[in-house]
Amino acid sequence: MTSLHDQSSRGFASDNYAGVHPEVLAAIATANGGHQISYGEDVYTERVRELMREQFGERAEVFPVFNGTGANVVALTSLLPRWGAVVATSTAHIHTDEGGAPEKMTGLKLYTVRTPDGKLTPELIATEAWGWGDEHRAQPLAVSITQTTELGTLYTPAEVRAIADWAHEHGMALHMDGARIWNAAAALGVPFREFTTDAGVDILSFGGTKNGLLGAEAIVVLDPDRVDGLIFLRKTSMQLASKMRFMSAQLLALFDEGLGLRSAAQANAMAIRLRSSLEAGISDGSISGLAFSQATQANAVFAVLDNGAADRIRERVRFYDWDRAAGQVRWMCAFDTTEADVDRFVAVIREELARA
Amino acid sequence: MTSLHDQSSRGFASDNYAGVHPEVLAAIATANGGHQISYGEDVYTERVRELMREQFGERAEVFPVFNGTGANVVALTSLLPRWGAVVATSTAHIHTDEGGAPEKMTGLKLYTVRTPDGKLTPELIATEAWGWGDEHRAQPLAVSITQTTELGTLYTPAEVRAIADWAHEHGMALHMDGARIWNAAAALGVPFREFTTDAGVDILSFGGTKNGLLGAEAIVVLDPDRVDGLIFLRKTSMQLASKMRFMSAQLLALFDEGLGLRSAAQANAMAIRLRSSLEAGISDGSISGLAFSQATQANAVFAVLDNGAADRIRERVRFYDWDRAAGQVRWMCAFDTTEADVDRFVAVIREELARA
Amino acid sequence: MTSLHDQSSRGFASDNYAGVHPEVLAAIATANGGHQISYGEDVYTERVRELMREQFGERAEVFPVFNGTGANVVALTSLLPRWGAVVATSTAHIHTDEGGAPEKMTGLKLYTVRTPDGKLTPELIATEAWGWGDEHRAQPLAVSITQTTELGTLYTPAEVRAIADWAHEHGMALHMDGARIWNAAAALGVPFREFTTDAGVDILSFGGTKNGLLGAEAIVVLDPDRVDGLIFLRKTSMQLASKMRFMSAQLLALFDEGLGLRSAAQANAMAIRLRSSLEAGISDGSISGLAFSQATQANAVFAVLDNGAADRIRERVRFYDWDRAAGQVRWMCAFDTTEADVDRFVAVIREELARA
Amino acid sequence: MTSLHDQSSRGFASDNYAGVHPEVLAAIATANGGHQISYGEDVYTERVRELMREQFGERAEVFPVFNGTGANVVALTSLLPRWGAVVATSTAHIHTDEGGAPEKMTGLKLYTVRTPDGKLTPELIATEAWGWGDEHRAQPLAVSITQTTELGTLYTPAEVRAIADWAHEHGMALHMDGARIWNAAAALGVPFREFTTDAGVDILSFGGTKNGLLGAEAIVVLDPDRVDGLIFLRKTSMQLASKMRFMSAQLLALFDEGLGLRSAAQANAMAIRLRSSLEAGISDGSISGLAFSQATQANAVFAVLDNGAADRIRERVRFYDWDRAAGQVRWMCAFDTTEADVDRFVAVIREELARA
Repeated sequence: MTSLHDQSSRGFASDNYAGVHPEVLAAIATANGGHQISYGEDVYTERVRELMREQFGERAEVFPVFNGTGANVVALTSLLPRWGAVVATSTAHIHTDEGGAPEKMTGLKLYTVRTPDGKLTPELIATEAWGWGDEHRAQPLAVSITQTTELGTLYTPAEVRAIADWAHEHGMALHMDGARIWNAAAALGVPFREFTTDAGVDILSFGGTKNGLLGAEAIVVLDPDRVDGLIFLRKTSMQLASKMRFMSAQLLALFDEGLGLRSAAQANAMAIRLRSSLEAGISDGSISGLAFSQATQANAVFAVLDNGAADRIRERVRFYDWDRAAGQVRWMCAFDTTEADVDRFVAVIREELARA
Repeated sequence: MTSLHDQSSRGFASDNYAGVHPEVLAAIATANGGHQISYGEDVYTERVRELMREQFGERAEVFPVFNGTGANVVALTSLLPRWGAVVATSTAHIHTDEGGAPEKMTGLKLYTVRTPDGKLTPELIATEAWGWGDEHRAQPLAVSITQTTELGTLYTPAEVRAIADWAHEHGMALHMDGARIWNAAAALGVPFREFTTDAGVDILSFGGTKNGLLGAEAIVVLDPDRVDGLIFLRKTSMQLASKMRFMSAQLLALFDEGLGLRSAAQANAMAIRLRSSLEAGISDGSISGLAFSQATQANAVFAVLDNGAADRIRERVRFYDWDRAAGQVRWMCAFDTTEADVDRFVAVIREELARA
Repeated sequence: MTSLHDQSSRGFASDNYAGVHPEVLAAIATANGGHQISYGEDVYTERVRELMREQFGERAEVFPVFNGTGANVVALTSLLPRWGAVVATSTAHIHTDEGGAPEKMTGLKLYTVRTPDGKLTPELIATEAWGWGDEHRAQPLAVSITQTTELGTLYTPAEVRAIADWAHEHGMALHMDGARIWNAAAALGVPFREFTTDAGVDILSFGGTKNGLLGAEAIVVLDPDRVDGLIFLRKTSMQLASKMRFMSAQLLALFDEGLGLRSAAQANAMAIRLRSSLEAGISDGSISGLAFSQATQANAVFAVLDNGAADRIRERVRFYDWDRAAGQVRWMCAFDTTEADVDRFVAVIREELARA
Repeated sequence: MTSLHDQSSRGFASDNYAGVHPEVLAAIATANGGHQISYGEDVYTERVRELMREQFGERAEVFPVFNGTGANVVALTSLLPRWGAVVATSTAHIHTDEGGAPEKMTGLKLYTVRTPDGKLTPELIATEAWGWGDEHRAQPLAVSITQTTELGTLYTPAEVRAIADWAHEHGMALHMDGARIWNAAAALGVPFREFTTDAGVDILSFGGTKNGLLGAEAIVVLDPDRVDGLIFLRKTSMQLASKMRFMSAQLLALFDEGLGLRSAAQANAMAIRLRSSLEAGISDGSISGLAFSQATQANAVFAVLDNGAADRIRERVRFYDWDRAAGQVRWMCAFDTTEADVDRFVAVIREELARA
């Protein structure tokens, strides 16, 4: 097969536009050859289980799945009875980007809360978490937070802890959508368990695809007492891979010689470089018509600019609008974003803003 | 990462115990590098679409998905209204091996029919396909057949045609679970479209994983007039890959230099070698206590032998019981099964049967 | 409002063609007037709870619902996790007459077993109840039996006990669809609890509508340890009546001065009269071309006769075919069927059979 | 059976605390006697169909169901493909009071919008109705409005028309939850069709229970081109009554000698009497500590008062808090609320407010 695309072209649309890190491909090849028991009884999946216990504590249980939507839906379902509901932000991926999968596949009801920065707090959760025991109200029995958030912001371990405590006091479980958990770990500079297990998270969607994998995520159960039937739910949710060894090999690769942290740190650094370069231009007056709507705490930059300028920039370097009416756009960096990519993008932004 | 397993060990448990064909890994690497639009707007997925139109006709539409259960459930759902039901064999994968996903994820009701050989016929279908218009009966609006069947048998193009005609006359659509469609094509020696599009199949679960892919299947719509909402159903069913280019590259690899047919033909040939060798032993009296319960038309051998003997053989070479009460076992060959593997297995079977 | 129908016309089509027993209408009127708390906190529903505890034991919990399908689906759902499946006969109402509601509303998978007489046995159940712990198989965690069966037959308390014991030994729960439980109680001549609570049934769909109510059934939990969330499941299943006092009043009426048993005994007696009269004719040679395919143990007569004769009879007195290919028809008696109705029907059958 | 409750006690908690209007009981009795075909093929249901065509236009189709949640869920499901979503107010019954039935039973996703008065407008709908064609977003294909609203307010025919036009222009269908449609008709003083069919509503949940029925609602399809499979969806949703003649008789009774309008007008008048009396007291200074948070346009009064006072009043006359944090309570009048009831309640409110 010959390549059909330009292997050197990169934009700022999404961290899932990037491909597979070469070390991940190598790990897949290493797991190849011979026969291995399918559906997760292979040695690579067993090794993932050990490794996740090292990372998240002795009680951690791991279930590799295909994608983030699968991880979120299966994880939340395992926490909730059929009459359960989830409190999440109105910008949560589970509400805005999963096509209604939580409702349609397993009947989860979502109670959504508006936030300024994509982050829940106990006070915000309390506006929708009430009515326990009332059969007329779908029972709010789980909270879902995203780390890093869909707005590129970050929960501190203490902020997660506060939410977990509130949730547990009210009989609710805490799910973390960690599609970008590596970016969070790199940004916070602490081990995973400090802002997950030790902060009271009960179940985690552990991301990998957005950080250089071909396609592998994992549900990591941190408090097994709060979940039920994961082994079955993964299967009925069509998320059980037959040749699971290759998904597990990908997950293992992230922990090999620090690949996952290296990759996420690069993406984060490039977002900060992008933001800093642009802010410098704003400060010295060489860039105008640009502002930022969210803090850049990981690998995303949320900027506000004129739709026309945004469209001209986009013609040259691809990215997505976030809220067109508000002129808000999202610029994402990936593990393979280079300093040159950023500098070129800054130049394009400068040029097109100058044209207005 | 270092290898954790014996790369030369192979058994007869399942074609999904085998790994990834090296040419498939190469194709993945070729699709790597640079950024590509996610969720299927990449050039590799576009090429898969073209290629499938060449294979299945100009009207064919293709939707890569993660796994066979996903392909089946999404395909069937796209054919059926909420009040629909599917007629299938009692041995169909959708009934016996998907954990109830069709019922649980999208509310499909299955009407199952017992068969001697895993194959439906119009007469068998008619025993459950009735009651149209009666609100008390979930409406039988689709038939699902498996090619090759779960019992290792094969529908001829004419047999598929007869089913399709009957189904269409009765207002039903026809789905084919082609998890092993490559083995069917290799065995029949005809192009795919002869026993699919041209035989009246409306939608197809096009298999790849069991034939040497890392993990990729595709829903191929053959009659777009009979389906609705696939683009949405794939997403809500958690089967939409973000980095789809790598799934598409796998699918493309199967068509590159005949890889898919080569691989399937090898698996089929090894099953025939296994069967023939054993039958020769039975004929010449050197093997006793062994019989076969199904024709070997593709890559599976269904044998009947004493449970004790089966267990002794299994201690040395892994495989699965099919129906323990009946002493029925399944021996599967894969793309990587070698003549030496077969001959060694035959020797083990001989030895253990002789011990009885 | 004036009557639009002939209030004296009665047939043998179904016990739900009959109307409301006048004593039931009186009970509804008695519960009328003034305000009562809605959704089941009224005094009539409280009285139903007490009365059901008297009937079924101190642990019994009761949840009035609208109809039999609602009772069955909610009851079974309360017994099962999301990955659960139910073993039932292939003639069970939940499989044949609920439009797929169990699958479509709450994702229950049904494993169906063919029976000669509509009755399960441990041996028959065992053909589908297996595979516990295997994620590929929807987990068979409940058995559902119907009393009296859809074929007009009856389980003895000992037969129920044998099924319950087998189910419980295998970690399964036992549901009884008691749409015609009053006919069973009248036929067996024992208290309800002898063939329910004391025989090991875990949850019961307690019928009323087919025995002279306007429309009221109840889920009666016999072993509260085996169910979960009924209060919520009834609501989410759209089975929670706001003015529940009137449903409860209907249920109470059945226990008032023996109304329920009186009504069911009348229906049963009329079925036996019908069968006996016809058998007498067969014996003395005055009737030919008629046979019976099931025992008449309650209020149904299953007869076999020529389609043409059946159609001529039906033109004069309404009833349903059961299996037209087999010439099998079902004649149902209701609480309001009279001896004169039966004798007239026998005469019609005689006349039309004689014409053949 | 003897009465267990005080038939003269009435409060202001809900219009479903009231019982059955005597003329409705009489209609049920009129439909009794003899046999009638079950499941809706009876003459009373046929008459309902004719009558609804007279009321709503020649294209109207009617499907009696058990309760309002059933009517709403089945109606919305009939409008929507599996990937559909509904835009509704955050106070809509389907969001707040149905236990999540829309999500749990048929996978509907709700997009909710905050409103000051329980009423949607095109502008408000537009905040959530977008993203058509994007597979990542559950497709907003229906709008649901409530008439009269859950906050006791009323849409004018022109307001409904504006919403319908906007919805239709955007490819969306319009559902009206008419649980209190009689109160709306009585308040507006126009025929039903003026604010339904003629205003562009596509499907209607036609209420009856809250206006003096024992328990009967109906789905009325106004534009049959926009719905699919209602006959099946009603059944699979467990909303198909076997003895439907009695539900239809109830619905007919509402149209007999103007009963429905008489009853609703009484309830509305009593709410206005309650509000006026209290406002008079506020005006003349004899009542203090009381305000109103919504217009009283039908049979509900939304008042704001101190929690302590509310609790003292409630000890004497039952009603519900609406938003306890905001001191908001809801006082509902029913068809059987009398002037004396209102005057007594006003006196109680005066006394308890005076005590503060």
